[in-house]
Amino acid sequence: WLLISPDGVDQLEKVYPFQDFNQALDFANAVGELAQGANHHPAILVEWGKATITWWTHTIHGLHRNDFVMAAKTDYLHGK
Amino acid sequence: WLLISPDGVDQLEKVYPFQDFNQALDFANAVGELAQGANHHPAILVEWGKATITWWTHTIHGLHRNDFVMAAKTDYLHGK
Repeated sequence: WLLISPDGVDQLEKVYPFQDFNQALDFANAVGELAQGANHHPAILVEWGKATITWWTHTIHGLHRNDFVMAAKTDYLHGK
Repeated sequence: WLLISPDGVDQLEKVYPFQDFNQALDFANAVGELAQGANHHPAILVEWGKATITWWTHTIHGLHRNDFVMAAKTDYLHGK
């Protein structure tokens, strides 16, 4: 995961490569389900061959412990 | 639709507001199906309450007539 700070807001970002658009979209849906269960939602950018997941906590304009947990769960989901 | 030119690449971009994350993700899936049928794929950014759709043609690093057609079809899909 990369620590980025657009407009001073710390965020965790990772690009997951896939073979095509639909595989990236499938992963977006799996992450969406994970997010729904945790009631904590990332930004998900789907493009041909990759999905970019970005976690941060809107209310504190930065990173909370929970974002690191969600990042780890995203990796786990990707590994399944 | 907004005409943007990140790194000199002309693109059509539009932000569609939704009531929550799942509605935005549902729209992403509908646009993904449209894209699959046309074999032309946008960038789709899903966030809580909005989906941002960006169309351009990678091979020409800019806009082709087809991108405008896809933009219109995206609007139609949203209106349904």
